[in-house]
Amino acid sequence: MIKYPSGIRKKNQKKFAPRIQSLKTNSYKNRGMSFEREISLSNESYLQQRIAVISKRPTPINVVKVDYQRGAKITHAYFEKQSTTDYNGIYRGKYLDFEAKSTHSKTALAIANITIHQREHLQRIIDQGGIAFLLISFVKRDEVFVLKASDFLGFLTQEVRQSLPYEWIVRKGKKVKIRLHPRLDYLKAVDELFF
Amino acid sequence: MIKYPSGIRKKNQKKFAPRIQSLKTNSYKNRGMSFEREISLSNESYLQQRIAVISKRPTPINVVKVDYQRGAKITHAYFEKQSTTDYNGIYRGKYLDFEAKSTHSKTALAIANITIHQREHLQRIIDQGGIAFLLISFVKRDEVFVLKASDFLGFLTQEVRQSLPYEWIVRKGKKVKIRLHPRLDYLKAVDELFF
Repeated sequence: MIKYPSGIRKKNQKKFAPRIQSLKTNSYKNRGMSFEREISLSNESYLQQRIAVISKRPTPINVVKVDYQRGAKITHAYFEKQSTTDYNGIYRGKYLDFEAKSTHSKTALAIANITIHQREHLQRIIDQGGIAFLLISFVKRDEVFVLKASDFLGFLTQEVRQSLPYEWIVRKGKKVKIRLHPRLDYLKAVDELFF
Repeated sequence: MIKYPSGIRKKNQKKFAPRIQSLKTNSYKNRGMSFEREISLSNESYLQQRIAVISKRPTPINVVKVDYQRGAKITHAYFEKQSTTDYNGIYRGKYLDFEAKSTHSKTALAIANITIHQREHLQRIIDQGGIAFLLISFVKRDEVFVLKASDFLGFLTQEVRQSLPYEWIVRKGKKVKIRLHPRLDYLKAVDELFF
């Protein structure tokens, strides 16, 4: 990719990047790869190495109108909110389920990022004995953490804060190592937290 | 719903039902509820009774153009093929994954209904120790079966036929009881085949 001086690049990114991208992805500083893309590559790597089968649920879309005269072209539709989490799959024979969130804040992750429906979903997975967690990226720190969903949900019942402090996430969660394959070896952190 | 004499109803259904519906669903004879809808209601019932958390992956859609002037209205997009199966979730602590297919044939299910990608996906789930199966509806017989994915994949290696014979599915699979809640109690059949 073109290496703009950071200021100009940022400006251009903002100007030219389609908004659909900005909604879905969060570019890493100086790395130019989105969090979603990194997770996707890591999952491909896990699949190839037969370590796990984990996939992203497609974004649900409410289709209003389809033009069948032109090869089933959708001409009117809207994005919908995911009522579950974005990722699920199987690892070490167990069901695994997580939501990935990134933040540009250096100090905290806003709790509002995880919807009520998603919190309920995570609680149900815990109740069923599954592995449930958040994968949190602090973009400006270039750090990614696995945080058990049970810790996250426990925080909600004990605290009145509107965000998860970075320091608390560091203490409760497990930092993900950045490698080559998989790029984000988050299952290693899952091993340490859940097994 | 309106009770047309069966002949007229069928004709009207064909005439008025949008094609998007006919692609996704298969109405039961004299019941008027699609297979997909019945599975969805059953999954809701399992969720409410805290028996399992199983959901349908949204149909992936390739979004080409979005009009942000009109509230992120998608104006150009196409349906894509699911590369995995349609359903997955957690049951009895285990990962569960299945593809649902219905046929109007009374004698067989065409194997081409399950794509190569889906077969590979089912094999991977088996390798990881998950519960993988097909949920097969013989619409005209008003019968639904659970068939282990391992039996299905085994058939492919042993036989040169292009379809799974009804009699073979009856012998290898487990018939699903039609109840009130859940309507299709397919997890009971899963219990008998997998546990």
